[in-house]
Amino acid sequence: MVRFLVMYQTPTDVESFENHYFEVHVPLAKQLPGLRRYTVSRGPSPVRGPDPCYMMAELDWDDMDSLRQDFASPLGQDAARDLDKLTAWCPTIHSTIFEVEEL
Amino acid sequence: MVRFLVMYQTPTDVESFENHYFEVHVPLAKQLPGLRRYTVSRGPSPVRGPDPCYMMAELDWDDMDSLRQDFASPLGQDAARDLDKLTAWCPTIHSTIFEVEEL
Repeated sequence: MVRFLVMYQTPTDVESFENHYFEVHVPLAKQLPGLRRYTVSRGPSPVRGPDPCYMMAELDWDDMDSLRQDFASPLGQDAARDLDKLTAWCPTIHSTIFEVEEL
Repeated sequence: MVRFLVMYQTPTDVESFENHYFEVHVPLAKQLPGLRRYTVSRGPSPVRGPDPCYMMAELDWDDMDSLRQDFASPLGQDAARDLDKLTAWCPTIHSTIFEVEEL
């Protein structure tokens, strides 16, 4: 499995960010045909060290080829442009692709 | 769902860390009765910004009560002490508990 991890630092405008994220961005990304699972993690309670972020989104694909195909599609490019729009209300967004192993 | 997220920065001794993690820590943590899912994410490829970490472990429970019960149990305390041992080879370990929503 491969995971596209997106970490959002605290938005400068929480309400506009949340509205756009859940009303526009999620419905767009959820149309990607190879997407297998989409979770958002919120409300962090630190145990050891600082909180890594305000919100973390994890989008899973079966393999790197399926992810690449979806990212390169017109819909994937729309979703990437929409992620850029989110920086208007949440300037610090980091994203990484990981290989994931279920133990 | 609640998630215990553990982020490991690059170990100072990768081989000893990996050995202890996969041979000792994972088998210990997997015995926790309320644990529903355990994944590790490795081999980050940055897309936007720096990589958040070397390895990320995610352990999921149904709810906060189940997590708390497992963490407070003798087995949970053994697992926490074992996480402390891992700092010998991986000094920077951050952990946080998040509420997780599947979209």
